[in-house]
Amino acid sequence: MDAYQALYGHFEELAALDHVRGILDWDRRVVMPAGGAEERARAQAAVARWRRARLADPRVGEWLEAVEPGSLAVEDRANLREMARLHRRAAAVPEGLTGALAEAAARAESAWAACRPAGDWAAFRPHLETVVERVREQAAALAETERVTRYGALLAGFQPGLTADRAEGLLGELEDFLPGLVARAEREGEAAPDPGGPFAADLQEDLARRVTGLLGYDFHHGRLDRAAHPFTGGAPADIRITTRFEERDFAPGLLAAVHEAGHALYEQHLPARWRHQPAGRARGMAVHEGQSLFMENQVGLHPGFLAQVDGMLAEARGADPDRRQGSGAALFRRLTRVAPGLIRVEADECTYPLHIRLRHLLEQRLVTGELAVADLPEAWEASMREHLGVAPEGDHGNGVMQDPHWAAGLFGYFPCYALGALIAAQLMEALRLDLPALDHQLAAGDLAPPRRWLAERVWARGSLEEFEALISDATGKPLDTGAFRRHLEARYLRGPG
Amino acid sequence: MDAYQALYGHFEELAALDHVRGILDWDRRVVMPAGGAEERARAQAAVARWRRARLADPRVGEWLEAVEPGSLAVEDRANLREMARLHRRAAAVPEGLTGALAEAAARAESAWAACRPAGDWAAFRPHLETVVERVREQAAALAETERVTRYGALLAGFQPGLTADRAEGLLGELEDFLPGLVARAEREGEAAPDPGGPFAADLQEDLARRVTGLLGYDFHHGRLDRAAHPFTGGAPADIRITTRFEERDFAPGLLAAVHEAGHALYEQHLPARWRHQPAGRARGMAVHEGQSLFMENQVGLHPGFLAQVDGMLAEARGADPDRRQGSGAALFRRLTRVAPGLIRVEADECTYPLHIRLRHLLEQRLVTGELAVADLPEAWEASMREHLGVAPEGDHGNGVMQDPHWAAGLFGYFPCYALGALIAAQLMEALRLDLPALDHQLAAGDLAPPRRWLAERVWARGSLEEFEALISDATGKPLDTGAFRRHLEARYLRGPG
Repeated sequence: MDAYQALYGHFEELAALDHVRGILDWDRRVVMPAGGAEERARAQAAVARWRRARLADPRVGEWLEAVEPGSLAVEDRANLREMARLHRRAAAVPEGLTGALAEAAARAESAWAACRPAGDWAAFRPHLETVVERVREQAAALAETERVTRYGALLAGFQPGLTADRAEGLLGELEDFLPGLVARAEREGEAAPDPGGPFAADLQEDLARRVTGLLGYDFHHGRLDRAAHPFTGGAPADIRITTRFEERDFAPGLLAAVHEAGHALYEQHLPARWRHQPAGRARGMAVHEGQSLFMENQVGLHPGFLAQVDGMLAEARGADPDRRQGSGAALFRRLTRVAPGLIRVEADECTYPLHIRLRHLLEQRLVTGELAVADLPEAWEASMREHLGVAPEGDHGNGVMQDPHWAAGLFGYFPCYALGALIAAQLMEALRLDLPALDHQLAAGDLAPPRRWLAERVWARGSLEEFEALISDATGKPLDTGAFRRHLEARYLRGPG
Repeated sequence: MDAYQALYGHFEELAALDHVRGILDWDRRVVMPAGGAEERARAQAAVARWRRARLADPRVGEWLEAVEPGSLAVEDRANLREMARLHRRAAAVPEGLTGALAEAAARAESAWAACRPAGDWAAFRPHLETVVERVREQAAALAETERVTRYGALLAGFQPGLTADRAEGLLGELEDFLPGLVARAEREGEAAPDPGGPFAADLQEDLARRVTGLLGYDFHHGRLDRAAHPFTGGAPADIRITTRFEERDFAPGLLAAVHEAGHALYEQHLPARWRHQPAGRARGMAVHEGQSLFMENQVGLHPGFLAQVDGMLAEARGADPDRRQGSGAALFRRLTRVAPGLIRVEADECTYPLHIRLRHLLEQRLVTGELAVADLPEAWEASMREHLGVAPEGDHGNGVMQDPHWAAGLFGYFPCYALGALIAAQLMEALRLDLPALDHQLAAGDLAPPRRWLAERVWARGSLEEFEALISDATGKPLDTGAFRRHLEARYLRGPG
């Protein structure tokens, strides 16, 4: 058999393993009873081992050697490149470590869910310590093979093609200009506007379904559930979104659903022809967060789109649609207040990247061993004060324990959010040039034109191109902080629009 | 390494595959969006292939040859016997066929769910035809290795140790005496009593949680959901039950939940020490249905227990518990009406085995090829008339399409229900001798004594003994139809008690 054909068949089985992993993860986070955590951790460790065994299989190395890339079509060459990347990284990490990390992470994530409500750091800490130990070993093994820094090796696992220096450059620029912008944008004098609640969870779920449906999220190939920490998961043709609702305000739960719908739209529009091959996967998590933040911030906070939301809220409440305000202006003003706070997922667009920057700095020190897990809460408080001027003062549930990422072993993921914000803004700037009627389309709830544009330029390209080339090709220039900065200045320093 | 140790490690990985399969099945039946069916079928076929590859692995055969059983403890010898059984059956079926059957079954079950509401036989039939073709091939391959009939080979897949002749003997006896008993028990003159509804689904779910909790079902290691066709699924330490609710009457949904709780109690009490080994699995599906039917019919329809249900219904309805009737007598009379009907899962205890018998006869003819799928609806109507005196008259959703078993490839499963009814009655007869206060305990809602008895004699034994020995040891005599017949005569021919 032809070596490429052998690889092709081999990686089709990998798609089935990824399907399994996606469903087990979703199940664990959304429906699994607490008592099932230990057995699930065992099962997920086994799946991680099987996945690693398939990717690291020495035959894959031999087949990769044997393929003559020149004999392949362009897209198959891209597929081959992605296969080689997956093989190299999997083979770099010893078999036992892959299973041990998956098991520790599954267990720590369950512990996080149990300990977070009371902010019980003492009970959570040993779980995180185990995960961090395994992650350090993983990073060291990857760094050796990939010949990059340990942290850079982790980054590239989430966003292939991203280096530690590139991330440092972009996040450093954000750290330079954002504090000044936040100070100018803050409207501390104003009292927080009343959202006009309470809003029952069922009403909010109805609203979330209407709004994500308007965005184009396909419920025939997905579902919407509630989760402690909103995420998008599942498997191809079955991409599931989650959100959480708080009674006092519908906006956080709705915007989380819109964010997740952005992820889901990307997954739902990946190239069907490449569905079971590496080239058909999303291009990386920075690009992914670019799509979710595009929907959340560029579309979801657009005043015209908010007028649509206003109308849908009135409908969900059973109110006469004619009695609605007919304008999203009040909602826009309320949702674009800038105010440094404790919680990343509740942060406004201007302070959000600062939450990321502090995690970016802390996780690098955790990975290198410069910072011990035991000293993390103190470092967290100090870093919050430095970057945001507020601190949780020992309230760990709203401090260092607010996110599940580190428990889940996801070190090197956070920068993808900040880069996603840059990508979203840069996509929007390019899209506006191509779609002069965009403001009217969003105000009319016609999402088809921007959806088609994104599908063609980003979503349907899967991993056929490399990260930086994908963004350059889609937007006409290399990724930088310019579009994001112009976006914030236009929205937050010169009023709506 | 010692050969038995090698086998032990090898089968621990099988437990992880079974975990994956259990969660994927539950997900598909309870939460999966319709558009995910095709991808799920692919993924489940892959899991079936991996499972088959692990079981049929030639190394397993070599290790089995190398072990000296005399060197093992008694329980390890039983574990070895179960390993050999699993290996033999898996190796008998060609690799491609295992995957093809799993894929066809997953697809047909989704088609069944879509086609059943409208009873669309024409759309469902090609799916069933594919499954039946694959099942015939599977049965032929197994029969050759196991040197039994094709149907017998399938039966033994669900209830190891059960032969086609033994099943024919027991079901034939039931067919002989049940029609006469039904005729004497029928109270056709009476109008169907009014259940006193409507009963909102949420209220029924609340009631189902209370009652299954009273039985001892552990929600920390399980959950209760709604499904088109009630089933028990999940994974060890995470055993999930499902039921369905109809507004006009709470009883069918409640009894289905009680039935599934019986399955779940068995799974929740399997021997923890053997959790990841073949000896730790349930002894077979006839024994399993014995536990579910014990809870449904022997406990769930007990007049004393029904008084408890009556009280819980009043509580769920928010009524003053003192205002409840305080007796389950009316409920008992209503739920023990004997009346032949179209639907197996709604049948009373007396006619239920006749529903099984007709499926038993039809599925044998389908497996041997004597009956074509195209001729199945007609054969169904004729068989219903013969065994139950009623027929769906072309209403396939309430006829041949009422059950998902055949779509799911489960040929040879149905006899387990009838045998389960025999087992449940025989267990109850033996248990009454050991627990003279049983009627009072059930009336007081104290389920601990019978639960301890069953746990010790059946549940915690896993597959450490063979089927017939397990029942003989637990009840003091070989399985026969006597206890079931005495149970029906006592309950249906001489009034409550």
